[in-house]
Amino acid sequence: MTDENHLLPAEPIQRQIARELYQHAKDLPLISPHGHVDPLLLADDQPFPDPARLFVVPDHYVTRMLASQGIPPARLGVPSVDGSAVETDGRAIWRLLAENWKLFRGTPSRLWTEKVLADVFGITTTLGGGTADEIYDELSARLAEPEYRPRALFTRFNIEVLATTESPLDELQAHAKLAADGWGGPGGRVITTFRPDNLVDPDWPGWAERVAELGVLTGQDVGTYAGFLAALRSRREAFIAAGATSSDHGHLTAKTLVLDDADAAVLYRKALGGGAGEQDAEAFRAHMLVEFARMSLDDGLVMQLHPGSVRNHNRDLYQRHGRDTGGDIPSATDYVHALRPLLDAHGTDPRLRVVLYTLDETAFSRELAPLAGGYPSLYLGAPWWFLDSPEGLRRFRETVTETAGFYNTSGFVDDTRAFCSIPARHDVARRVDAGYLAKLVAQGTLPLDEAAETIADLAYHLPKRVFRLDGQA
Amino acid sequence: MTDENHLLPAEPIQRQIARELYQHAKDLPLISPHGHVDPLLLADDQPFPDPARLFVVPDHYVTRMLASQGIPPARLGVPSVDGSAVETDGRAIWRLLAENWKLFRGTPSRLWTEKVLADVFGITTTLGGGTADEIYDELSARLAEPEYRPRALFTRFNIEVLATTESPLDELQAHAKLAADGWGGPGGRVITTFRPDNLVDPDWPGWAERVAELGVLTGQDVGTYAGFLAALRSRREAFIAAGATSSDHGHLTAKTLVLDDADAAVLYRKALGGGAGEQDAEAFRAHMLVEFARMSLDDGLVMQLHPGSVRNHNRDLYQRHGRDTGGDIPSATDYVHALRPLLDAHGTDPRLRVVLYTLDETAFSRELAPLAGGYPSLYLGAPWWFLDSPEGLRRFRETVTETAGFYNTSGFVDDTRAFCSIPARHDVARRVDAGYLAKLVAQGTLPLDEAAETIADLAYHLPKRVFRLDGQA
Amino acid sequence: MTDENHLLPAEPIQRQIARELYQHAKDLPLISPHGHVDPLLLADDQPFPDPARLFVVPDHYVTRMLASQGIPPARLGVPSVDGSAVETDGRAIWRLLAENWKLFRGTPSRLWTEKVLADVFGITTTLGGGTADEIYDELSARLAEPEYRPRALFTRFNIEVLATTESPLDELQAHAKLAADGWGGPGGRVITTFRPDNLVDPDWPGWAERVAELGVLTGQDVGTYAGFLAALRSRREAFIAAGATSSDHGHLTAKTLVLDDADAAVLYRKALGGGAGEQDAEAFRAHMLVEFARMSLDDGLVMQLHPGSVRNHNRDLYQRHGRDTGGDIPSATDYVHALRPLLDAHGTDPRLRVVLYTLDETAFSRELAPLAGGYPSLYLGAPWWFLDSPEGLRRFRETVTETAGFYNTSGFVDDTRAFCSIPARHDVARRVDAGYLAKLVAQGTLPLDEAAETIADLAYHLPKRVFRLDGQA
Repeated sequence: MTDENHLLPAEPIQRQIARELYQHAKDLPLISPHGHVDPLLLADDQPFPDPARLFVVPDHYVTRMLASQGIPPARLGVPSVDGSAVETDGRAIWRLLAENWKLFRGTPSRLWTEKVLADVFGITTTLGGGTADEIYDELSARLAEPEYRPRALFTRFNIEVLATTESPLDELQAHAKLAADGWGGPGGRVITTFRPDNLVDPDWPGWAERVAELGVLTGQDVGTYAGFLAALRSRREAFIAAGATSSDHGHLTAKTLVLDDADAAVLYRKALGGGAGEQDAEAFRAHMLVEFARMSLDDGLVMQLHPGSVRNHNRDLYQRHGRDTGGDIPSATDYVHALRPLLDAHGTDPRLRVVLYTLDETAFSRELAPLAGGYPSLYLGAPWWFLDSPEGLRRFRETVTETAGFYNTSGFVDDTRAFCSIPARHDVARRVDAGYLAKLVAQGTLPLDEAAETIADLAYHLPKRVFRLDGQA
Repeated sequence: MTDENHLLPAEPIQRQIARELYQHAKDLPLISPHGHVDPLLLADDQPFPDPARLFVVPDHYVTRMLASQGIPPARLGVPSVDGSAVETDGRAIWRLLAENWKLFRGTPSRLWTEKVLADVFGITTTLGGGTADEIYDELSARLAEPEYRPRALFTRFNIEVLATTESPLDELQAHAKLAADGWGGPGGRVITTFRPDNLVDPDWPGWAERVAELGVLTGQDVGTYAGFLAALRSRREAFIAAGATSSDHGHLTAKTLVLDDADAAVLYRKALGGGAGEQDAEAFRAHMLVEFARMSLDDGLVMQLHPGSVRNHNRDLYQRHGRDTGGDIPSATDYVHALRPLLDAHGTDPRLRVVLYTLDETAFSRELAPLAGGYPSLYLGAPWWFLDSPEGLRRFRETVTETAGFYNTSGFVDDTRAFCSIPARHDVARRVDAGYLAKLVAQGTLPLDEAAETIADLAYHLPKRVFRLDGQA
Repeated sequence: MTDENHLLPAEPIQRQIARELYQHAKDLPLISPHGHVDPLLLADDQPFPDPARLFVVPDHYVTRMLASQGIPPARLGVPSVDGSAVETDGRAIWRLLAENWKLFRGTPSRLWTEKVLADVFGITTTLGGGTADEIYDELSARLAEPEYRPRALFTRFNIEVLATTESPLDELQAHAKLAADGWGGPGGRVITTFRPDNLVDPDWPGWAERVAELGVLTGQDVGTYAGFLAALRSRREAFIAAGATSSDHGHLTAKTLVLDDADAAVLYRKALGGGAGEQDAEAFRAHMLVEFARMSLDDGLVMQLHPGSVRNHNRDLYQRHGRDTGGDIPSATDYVHALRPLLDAHGTDPRLRVVLYTLDETAFSRELAPLAGGYPSLYLGAPWWFLDSPEGLRRFRETVTETAGFYNTSGFVDDTRAFCSIPARHDVARRVDAGYLAKLVAQGTLPLDEAAETIADLAYHLPKRVFRLDGQA
């Protein structure tokens, strides 16, 4: 079990306050409205495969760190694009992790892994070359037991709701099965999220083909812009029927643009014809964010914006192993100018709700907190990806709170495909928030009872409300 | 009364040192060389209106936070541009604040408000829905008493000098009355600041009309560029006669540009004729900063630069309620390239003094501290606006001091229109500086006696000297 | 002697842990693979001149701070470009420093100076106007003693290896003398670094003349691009023979560009002919970084990149006193796009090693840690220049470690021309790292024994390995 003082301030006065505050959050159910867990995991409820396939192969935080010290992803079992052989021996992969465990000192990957080993699997042996096999065997044994199946863990983790993320082209069959089993659908335990990036980005290879597929799926004439919008609306309805309360948008920039219908239609046809240049593509993506905002005014989906990641930066990695394998790198991201067209149009409309994320921390005090602290439609999501870490979470509160307060933030939201790490991630956030609030209490700027209410809001009530999981608009 | 440990480090060793250091600063007079208090307040010395008009209506920190959670500014009594009705019942407005008080947890607005309630009005009841009326009544009673009139408070607050900020078009009648009463004029308690933005920004609606007004006011022929400069020089003289020791410049960027007189004159005429494009307008503003610097070489006004705020970002708010109502948002701001023309021309002239502010914290360690730590003409102003907060003040010292030291900063300068909050703001800065200096003492990098001298300099001697309020050049 | 708790956390629990960790690092030899000490200092082993010429005249940290408060560099003995008189009285210069010592409160210059005075010269009297002469006399007396000669100090400082930095045009005579004395050459105590900036930057006045000089020195036909490359390769060989294990590159930006040989040759000839515009010059520099990377694949030199400094920003200072006198100012620096061409070409080649530095801290969490934590070729250098300070070092660990871990950083590397300050700088870094690691231990995220191994790696083993000073590829 994790030390009760884990991640709390070392200074005794603040530690004592933080411990007390943490008690108000630690047993609250987990709200996970933005995740990347494969819904089939819970739909099928099959046992997890071996430890390597649970902890290493699909986790790009882990594989990128090992790659950064010269261990090729193929040796870690990361599937290759061309089908060439990669390591398949789970034990060999696990040993590579264990032998290089010191690379992860000071990283959240180590933190999460150790918490999962201890809190989920009851393993407190320190990982290393000498203990790799022993831990592998113990993990394998546990994974074969019924109480380590996904649904059992879901219940044990005290997850109240978990949103997965799907393309509009996904037919949501896993979610249908979940609904049939009483686990899914509106208000259900496992819901979906509408993520249309691959349908609105003409730069993404295969875009026109996917648009055509959308037409087939919806029966709309996607040869016209109006038909394209109708098709997207129809998929949003299907997603809402599968429980979705939000959409998600991960463009390179946060740019938004208001085009009139005629101009948008021209751009759409140009893109469909393959004639869209880089600027056309950016304009189309920017305009589509405004279109999605308008759809949200009608259907109530909360928009999430995740801009600023330069995808597939590591070309060699991309060519060998494809997308989402650890090769994305953040870049400087403007919000103040980029969001202005959207906000001019709908920023004070009470029906609009947009949750903003960033990989560029400089935006927190300069742009994001002032924006969220001024516009009724805007909320700040939790520190994302590389920033979902103890120091990242601390800096977020320190740079955001004084301008935006706590109640213009979404509360903690994990963003993981690593199902078993969900409780660990929430626990880290709760502990860091306890430490931050303890500082305010110790310095005399917040009474203890208000701090206690606040930590519960950040851990549970806020994400539930902000993502419209409480059944309210 | 505020807890004596308020905002000091929680850790006992540093807290003890910080308490001792704070003693060296806490009773020093307040120097407020850059504020936005209405001079009529002190000229007329009328009682403050009701609590809502003191604490809520004119404070855009407060109204924007409430707006961010869906409370329209009209319900808070913020005047409308079109004259449409807004809430006028002070008690109703006050209740809205009290009922939503939790939104301000962790913000400086809460800090300042509670300090004002406690330290100025002796009210320590916690604000909330249940106590709103009681506090409103108590405040109203106090405000009717003579010792709560502005001049009485000014004396009680131990303000040595307060600068207000006026446009060159202001005829300075309030300041004339103050001077007649022995409160104003050169070396007086209430002085003015020369803020010519609305006369040098062709993009600002009504610019040409204001220039014409300047011509009438000064008797100069503002149809020519030379006449325009002469008119500005003449207003600077009038401002200096009303006690001004500084000018203030709040452009979107920090860009400076040296044009020769002929080119400047061409640009001026083009702008007057309404033909200036966006780039022309920026060039004109940039050049005028250099012109003002040249005037400073002659007349000794300290220049303050406040760049980087995107004004009226919230269009809906701007259209309903006008400027300065909480709709401005910071943006990334370059100094290193922007200031180069000015610095090339006059950066090492011992007569020039420029105080630089920022809303973009990234500039502190990267550009501003290196600039102020190298050029004799440059000083860094205190953390401004969204950054005038405990964490903002702490980060300022942490990112600036190692490169620029303490003596290239201006010491603390508030920037408020909320007269009653002035002591609270200075006290917060003194406490945060005490904490920062205590860390240096505790870590063995600064002896206690030098830290004590430093905190007094930051609180009092430095702003007095940097803003030429000590009668020295 | 320095207080044993110097710079360690004030909080007792962390301080105790930090003290223990510091013991594991404090006596390790110093690895200094990137410095600017004049190699003649050690080749000739003459006594240091007077205290002013040791502590003030050549130290632009010191002279810029004094200049920022109006003391002209000429009064500090900084040589003038036009040969006009500057102060030559060391005692007068020293007094200026002493009388203005308070300007350095909170700066690393003060920290280093006091540590050098105490730890190297045994002087613990506080510097000030009243003690200036006494300290000057004491220092002068010590400097005349044989144990204060450079080689004796080198040994006493426990420096294992010191790299100086030379232009390819340097004939490396000082290094030849060092080698002859058993101090230099491959694996020696004093080695060189290949710094070709002044040969690849067509914007740098005199470039074509220097290229011609390179031709003479190497016997290559530098009239052709192929000859130019061959000449550079030949100088790299000479540098490697003088012990070099790395090259160093200090361009304004981090831009890289892959040109084919024909295009590069065109650009080269255009530049040689004086016809290269600003963009051509930048393209040439960017391309040459890729050429140097290719040479590194063959000869194994580790590349160091130091981008982002706007050189000679202070024009007046530059015109009076020339380069490297304190007039450079950092600017915002992009890495993610700038490095992409180089990384696309060679980023996962196991032979390439690039150490990245920055003066723009915003890049640490946003770009540099993600890059170094993903590419096998990339390491992050220690905080550089204005960031080589207690707060700068702390922020580096806080913003980098969670994404890149410790083992994608180079460990501590000083970057100084002030030979006597080398031990002080390493000691500061060891103490700050002890404090950072102590926090991890106190918060339960890193066991003490692993923290102890880590601090020794950061202080000694990592720089030795990363800069290929261990004889391994």
